Order: sequence, then C-alpha cells, then structure tokens
Amino acid sequence: MNAPDLGQALRRPLPEACLEALRAQFGDRLSVAAAVREHHGTDESPYPAMPPDAVVYAHTTEEVVAVAKLCNAHGVPLIPYGTGSSLEGHTLAIQGGITIDVSQMNQVVAIHAEDLTATVQAGVTRKQLNEELRDTGLFFPIDPGADASLGGMAATRASGTNAVRYGTMRENVVSLTVVTADGRVIRTASRARKSSTGYDLTRIFVGSEGTLGIITEVTVRLYPQPEAVSAAICNFESLDAAVQSVIEIIQMGVPVARVEFMDEAGVRAVNRYSHLTLRESPILLFEFHGSPAGVEEQARVVQDITRENGGMDFEWAARPEDRSRLWTARHNAYFAGLQLRPGCRSSTTDVCVPISRLADCVRETVEDLSKASFPYTIVGHVGDGNFHVLMLLDPNSPTDWEESEVVNHRLARRAIAYDGTCSGEHGVGLHKMQFLEEEHGEDALALMRSLKHAFDPNNILNPGKIFPW
Amino acid sequence: MNAPDLGQALRRPLPEACLEALRAQFGDRLSVAAAVREHHGTDESPYPAMPPDAVVYAHTTEEVVAVAKLCNAHGVPLIPYGTGSSLEGHTLAIQGGITIDVSQMNQVVAIHAEDLTATVQAGVTRKQLNEELRDTGLFFPIDPGADASLGGMAATRASGTNAVRYGTMRENVVSLTVVTADGRVIRTASRARKSSTGYDLTRIFVGSEGTLGIITEVTVRLYPQPEAVSAAICNFESLDAAVQSVIEIIQMGVPVARVEFMDEAGVRAVNRYSHLTLRESPILLFEFHGSPAGVEEQARVVQDITRENGGMDFEWAARPEDRSRLWTARHNAYFAGLQLRPGCRSSTTDVCVPISRLADCVRETVEDLSKASFPYTIVGHVGDGNFHVLMLLDPNSPTDWEESEVVNHRLARRAIAYDGTCSGEHGVGLHKMQFLEEEHGEDALALMRSLKHAFDPNNILNPGKIFPW
Repeated sequence: MNAPDLGQALRRPLPEACLEALRAQFGDRLSVAAAVREHHGTDESPYPAMPPDAVVYAHTTEEVVAVAKLCNAHGVPLIPYGTGSSLEGHTLAIQGGITIDVSQMNQVVAIHAEDLTATVQAGVTRKQLNEELRDTGLFFPIDPGADASLGGMAATRASGTNAVRYGTMRENVVSLTVVTADGRVIRTASRARKSSTGYDLTRIFVGSEGTLGIITEVTVRLYPQPEAVSAAICNFESLDAAVQSVIEIIQMGVPVARVEFMDEAGVRAVNRYSHLTLRESPILLFEFHGSPAGVEEQARVVQDITRENGGMDFEWAARPEDRSRLWTARHNAYFAGLQLRPGCRSSTTDVCVPISRLADCVRETVEDLSKASFPYTIVGHVGDGNFHVLMLLDPNSPTDWEESEVVNHRLARRAIAYDGTCSGEHGVGLHKMQFLEEEHGEDALALMRSLKHAFDPNNILNPGKIFPW
Repeated sequence: MNAPDLGQALRRPLPEACLEALRAQFGDRLSVAAAVREHHGTDESPYPAMPPDAVVYAHTTEEVVAVAKLCNAHGVPLIPYGTGSSLEGHTLAIQGGITIDVSQMNQVVAIHAEDLTATVQAGVTRKQLNEELRDTGLFFPIDPGADASLGGMAATRASGTNAVRYGTMRENVVSLTVVTADGRVIRTASRARKSSTGYDLTRIFVGSEGTLGIITEVTVRLYPQPEAVSAAICNFESLDAAVQSVIEIIQMGVPVARVEFMDEAGVRAVNRYSHLTLRESPILLFEFHGSPAGVEEQARVVQDITRENGGMDFEWAARPEDRSRLWTARHNAYFAGLQLRPGCRSSTTDVCVPISRLADCVRETVEDLSKASFPYTIVGHVGDGNFHVLMLLDPNSPTDWEESEVVNHRLARRAIAYDGTCSGEHGVGLHKMQFLEEEHGEDALALMRSLKHAFDPNNILNPGKIFPW
C-alpha cells in the first residue's frame, strides 16, 4: 500500500574520485554500509527507503564546505540530514548522492540571556536546547511532534503547538550560518532584533528544505519561562462549537499559549495509549502562560466563551503533574494514533486555512474520511487554522494507499480553495510537490525556480524536492 | 551642507516611444511637469531632488503591469512611490525613468475580522487603515513616524514604537500582490496564518525597496484593540539605568506594548513643541495593553523594576487624553527636533543592536556627538535595541554635512561591530549602501545580487538602490 517506489530512474552516478576524496578526509565518518544508507534514505513519510550512495558525518561548518565544494565540482547530490523526522520525504535520496548528517554538530555555541537569543549548531535538538536553558529562566517554544534538530526545523519552517502565541520558525530564527552550493559560508543576519538592510536571507533559507544551502548554525529567539502555567480541557458536541470558541477567544485578545483540537477518535487513541479517561468527544486543550493572576484571568475568559458555545466539563489542570500528563498525551497523539491499528503505516496531512474556513474544511474532510476503509484521527493547532489527519493504512491492503491519496488530494485542494495552504508546517518534500502550482500559481513558482537556479546552478542541493528541476 | 548631488551621470535616456505609449494609456495621469517630477524625486533624506523623467499615477494592478512591461521592453527605470516619506533616498530617481505613484490605489479591498487580516491596495496609509478598522474592534499596530503607505512600509520592512510587542512588517505581512519586472502578477502567499510550502516569497519582497517587484496589494495581520491601555513615564539619571530597566522588564516577560527612550535634548524639544512640562532628563515612555487588571499588573512590575534601577518620578497616564498627548508628543519628536534649529535640514541614523550592547552603543555615540558642532536628539525603540540620532544641520554650513557623516559612519560601523545592523527600520536606499558589505559580508551580498539578477535581469526596478548593479 505504500507510496510508490521512485526507483533508480533518477539516480546520478557517484564518481569514484568524489568518494575517495571524502574517504580521505572523513575516514570512519564516511559510511557506505547498507544499513546506514538505508537509515538515511528513510523518514517518517510513507515512502519506501531511497538511500544515498554514502553518508558523511560532519563536525564543523568547514567540513560541510569541503563536502559542498566536492559535490558541486562533481555534480553530486548533497542532502542535509538532522534527525530524519520529516514527514513528506524531504531527506530521501531520490537522485542518490551524499547525505551529510549534521546530528553530531550538537554544540550550543552561545546563550545570550540578556538578548534572549541562543546560537546552536544545526544538529542540536529542541529538547536538548531547552535542557541547556533550564537554569537561565528562558525557553525555546517551537515544538514539532518529534524532537527534531534546530537545523531541520529551520529548513522545514516547522512550528507546533505553541505557534499561536510564539510564532513558527519563520518568526523565531534570528540568523543562520549557511554553506552555499559552491562552498561559501554566509551568515544571513546579525543578532539585532530587527533589520532593514537588504534582502531577508534568513527567511529565504527558512523553509528551503536544503535546496538552497546547508544550515550549519541557527540563532533563535528565546522567551522568559512564564511565571505561571495552567492547562484546561473542554469537551464539545461538535467541531463547529469548538472552532467558534477559538475564534472568539482570539478575537478577545486572550494570549493563549496553546489551543489544540482533537477529534473523538484522537481522544480515544490518547486515552488508550496514555491511560487517561478523557471524555471521548471533540475537545479543546488549552495552555495559559503568564503571571498567576493573568493565567487565572485568561482561563476565566476562556471558560466563559466555551460555555457560551456549548462547551462541557471545562476542567482545570493547574498542578504541574496533571498538566504535563495532558500535554505529554497530546504530544504522543501521533504514536497513540498508530496504535489504533497495530502494524499500520501512516500517512499524515497538514493543511492550514484562515480560521473562518476551518470548521467547513474539517467537516468536509470528515465526510471524505467517513467513506474510507481505514481508521483515522484528527488533531489540530486550531488557533492557527492548521490541522492534521493521521490516516492508518494497512501495508498489505491493495487499496489503502490509493484511498488515502484521494483524501489527501481532495483536502489539499480544498485548503487551497479556502485561501489556505497544502502544508502548514510539514513542508513540501516529495509528497506535496504536486500541489505547489495550484497553490502558488505558475508565475510565483517560476520566481521560486529562478531563485533555486541562482543559488544552486548545478542543482546539487537536495535535488528533486519542492519542485522538479 | 547637503548630501552630494549625484547629478546626471547615471541617467538613462527615456525613449520617446515609451513616453508616448504611457501618455496614450494614462492621459492626465501621466505628468512631466517639473514640480511633479521634483516632488517625486525628493524624500525625507538629506539628498537633493533627483527627479524622474515622468510620473504615472496608477489605479490598478493591471495598469502597473502595463507600465512594467513597457519599461522592461525599453530598459527604463521604474520606481514605485507611496507617500514619499522614506528617509534614506529610496525613491530618488538617480537613473531617471518613470516613477509610478500608487497613492491613488487607496482602497481597502477586504477586512476579514474573524481571521484578523485586512487586504488593502498599496497606497492605503496606516492611519487610513486604522480609521476603517475603528468599528471592528481590531487595529493594525505598525506605526513608523510618518503616515506611510502600507506598500511602502512593506517595501522598507518598516516598524515603529509597537514592534517590541507586535513585531515589524516582516512579521505582519501575510501576503502581497506583486508585479514583477516583466509584468507578471504574483500573489506571494495565501491568507493562512502559516505555511511551509516553498520559498518565502512574501519575506523576499518585504524589505526589497522596490528593487525586486512592485507591490500593489498588501494583506496584513490585525490585532484585537486592547480592552485597556495605560501609559507611564519614568525619568532616569543615566541612559544605562534606563536600558538596564528595559532588559529586566523584557526578561521578566512583561508584555509591554511600547517602551521608548528619549534623551534630555529630545525631551526638551518635545516640551517646547508640544507644550509639555516633562522633566528634562533621559526618560522611558511606556504603554501597556491588556485587560484592566493585566495593565495594572504590568505597570506595577515595571514601576518596581525602574525604581530598583534608580528611576524617578514614575508617572501614570491612565486617562486617554493624557496618554494621547504623551504619545502624540513622542510621534512628533522628529518635527519637534527640527524646531530646535530653525531652518535646519536633518540627517537621521537608525542602528539596531542586541539590547545587551545598547547602552554602550548609545554612550559611545554621545561621545562622538559631543564633539560635533550641530545640535542633536536621540530617541529609541529601546525594547528592540533600535535608536535614532536626529542631527540638525545648517544648510549653509560648509562642514555640518561632513561632520554628520563622520558620526553616521562611526555609528553604523559600531553597530555592526556589536553584532547589530546599520538600519533597524529605515532601510538602505542610497545612504546605507556603503555599509552593506561590512554588515553582511561579500558572499551574502553576492547572493542578494544573484537574487536581484534572477528577478530583474534588465535592472529596471528602482536601480542603484540597496547595492550598485
């Protein structure tokens, strides 16, 4: 049932001279072992493995420069790799070549507490960074499901549950160190909070999925750990009532830190997986950050609004252990969903629409899903208008994949028709390429291509992703 | 004393056929009158007028397309123009050509209150937009000194006093309609709150100063009008104490909406101009947005922190009329400063540094200024690490301009050395071009140039700005 194997058709040859030069420089840190290549040719997408010809473990920006120069000279594809947690096939070596694994570039370079910034090597993960920040009173809020690397999060313009309050990687990357296709090192910006000097190189590389340059260092914004945090949960009879509540909460200016939607099946999955006893109906999960009085006030306003929209069983979780249990359960929703169908593989959608269209978009998608033969769950970063369908596919079914693709296609097109996007936070990779022209139009896509040509004229950087050459 | 006249050296010829075609299409809305050309060849920078050959008043995106196609075919420079309030020479027609004035494209296209977005034509000004939003309970926060057009604000990546809380145009432009050099129309993004689909075209055009495309429509984020607003003012013995207070306030996570610094001379100017009786010492001006209780709490915390740092005379302005008087005075600081030296022309700097370096940067700049023979004032969006020196120059002095340029150069280089930027919000235009390589490095600048070449191969869009061709 899996996504089609793209096979060997596109693979470029790896010149022996290139491999030898890498071996001479990297020794043990170059691997051509099948298991290592297979691992690096796989991500969390439904695609089968498409391994690179070799994997190099880089330790420094200078080493990345050396690899880039070599690959550029030989026309060899070069694919950056962090933790391999991407969902749309971003890191698959569809044209072969070299995967450059930056997971060992995992040093926190500097924490500037007064300036609320941290600079890290690209392989540092979000949990590692927050671990290192623990004693500073600061934290880094962006939290995709996986414990992804900061380099990968920047490259896919990732976000997560906190985006409604703190923004996405787009808003939270201050500066990047990037190695270009021809092996130059650039720093995209200073550490100033804002700047008007020239083109926004930082934002050009954020979301470029390794196709314009290889990110080796990331400077991010930090935030004060809130003095007080509380969580709440509220059940609804319908999705519409939940979404209407969120619209009103945001229009009231309540600075909710998180507001997440889960459908009935999602709650059921989470109950089983995390041993909870949540009522199995559409729910909203809230988190509030602020002063103790501010947090109480936010929760009170939210409770009033949800009640007016038919919300039931508004429940507080002020104790840290309850809160943490709830949010851990939410963070495990993906794995919880997978358990609904043992042995399944998953396909995940990721649309984002203006919030006024969210209820319609989810409702119409549920109608599609109700005709499908596989189970599914829905979770949503509903404050942003972003939601995911986790479709649980039987790898032995002859039809599950095709059916899921029909749902996925209809959903992507529905989101675009609602003036939204076919990917809110997962990125394009291989799987969303087909929708880009419909979303952006031919002329905008032509501009993107001209940027790719300008920055990577030999098309060595993660070739065949975002759009075909 | 003014900036040197760049003269006629660079001007390209305007083919008669191009002018005739424009005249045929635009009739009265094409002007070659000297006064009109002079007006459009001037901005708020210290440069003398550099008029275009003709001015076209466009009413629609389609008309902008027609002009772009014509200019591109004839290799004629094309300069977009909103309100002419830019500060660094952005709109001066140094190579001649056509200025396309979009100030009559001043329709609010759509307000989507539930989604917190508004779409406007490029000529709509920030005050006009807020006027139209008055009954919606929403507002648009970005407030450069001038009542600039939204198109111009996007093109220069503008910000203002609210940026510490609400961000700059970088964070608040959702999508743009842009006419490319060859007359294609693209929309840079959907109205979704976030997206991970391809290169960030929106952020590529935000801050591009008319050199990559002509913005004809802007979709911006809106915010709920705060339930309560209050202001406060606090005097300090020294700049350091003021800056240290701000660092602590931000590290505490107090969500101040505005925090502005003014030096003694700035306060004196504002007192005279706006008939106030503020104590003439370094001051911080605060504004708080939130619920009534939240606003009180913020002010209390801020008062405690400023007191611990030696702040004096912490004074509330909770009544709307007092608040408005205070902030109107701040907004008029530029004009107030000009009055300190009747008949003067001004030169304004605009650096932004990590806040930990702000006190040092201002102090060293004051040392430079104390040796200069002209008066000056300092105002700062201190929460962002951004400050301006307004230098009041005698147009008849043989040395004022050169002296002010020495201060400006030393300050720009100082900011860059402190890992900051030579322009926080005014942009590059002509005046800051000389610092770009120092700030970004040769390789980053080469990438920017390659982007310019890719998007505007005939170099017709605002040529000679940001960097020489």
